[in-house]
Amino acid sequence: MKLTTFSDYALRVLMYAGAAGDRLVTIEETARVYRISQSHLMKVVNVLTNAGYLRGVRGRSGGFTLARRPEEINLGAVVRVTETDFALVECFTQSNECLISSRCRLPRLLNKALAAFISTFDDYTLADIMLSEQDFAQSAPPRIAGDAPTSPARSD
Amino acid sequence: MKLTTFSDYALRVLMYAGAAGDRLVTIEETARVYRISQSHLMKVVNVLTNAGYLRGVRGRSGGFTLARRPEEINLGAVVRVTETDFALVECFTQSNECLISSRCRLPRLLNKALAAFISTFDDYTLADIMLSEQDFAQSAPPRIAGDAPTSPARSD
Repeated sequence: MKLTTFSDYALRVLMYAGAAGDRLVTIEETARVYRISQSHLMKVVNVLTNAGYLRGVRGRSGGFTLARRPEEINLGAVVRVTETDFALVECFTQSNECLISSRCRLPRLLNKALAAFISTFDDYTLADIMLSEQDFAQSAPPRIAGDAPTSPARSD
Repeated sequence: MKLTTFSDYALRVLMYAGAAGDRLVTIEETARVYRISQSHLMKVVNVLTNAGYLRGVRGRSGGFTLARRPEEINLGAVVRVTETDFALVECFTQSNECLISSRCRLPRLLNKALAAFISTFDDYTLADIMLSEQDFAQSAPPRIAGDAPTSPARSD
């Protein structure tokens, strides 16, 4: 079983933005910290912004920050936004070719299991999984923009 | 979120073998009914046989059948056998590159959600999702070996 990469990244973006507090973070910086693709992250940040979890500030020194306090960001609600692809098995998809779909009792069970999975997240907010900016700084082998004075070098 | 194709197919194989009752079914026949790949199914049938859910009979008129009664096949136990890939997110894999893995609180939450997902299956046995052989026969556009007298044709 797998979460979509989209949800995985969304949770990570929120954790990173949360750790940064009021400081604006950039997609480039977040991608570098997690060693993941910027283009993929851009879509994730857009969705989280549209859903009201992130607030973007345009411009040269722009970036994004949490739009709500961490304890107001329920993880169940986030996962429901980001897990757009709830296609657990073939018959949940449009390209379904399974011939017993109309009579099969499995989808109901799978939906129940999925609901149990998601509702686990309902009991948590971002505050419950927050790390400090220090945690990220300690991890990063190159450099993290976190404590850089004004314009962090961007060569890597 | 997605179940592995392996688990999906395993549940379908058990449903089909269950519907056939004492009649031996073949991989070829099962693949045809579900319109899925024979080679993929072969691996699934092997794993289910080794785990004691299917009993294989070798030879020209061989095939497989359930090795236990449907109500003795707990679906939670099956999914635990077939979902070998419980890599919900990157940091659950060996190729993990996420830099905060050692401090991250997300894995614990994900494991809890995964346990809730799986434990839903624990409440069900194959008997709960069984269909009749009729259900499969009604679905199939070509022909199903189900009611064929002795040696079902194998041309397709």
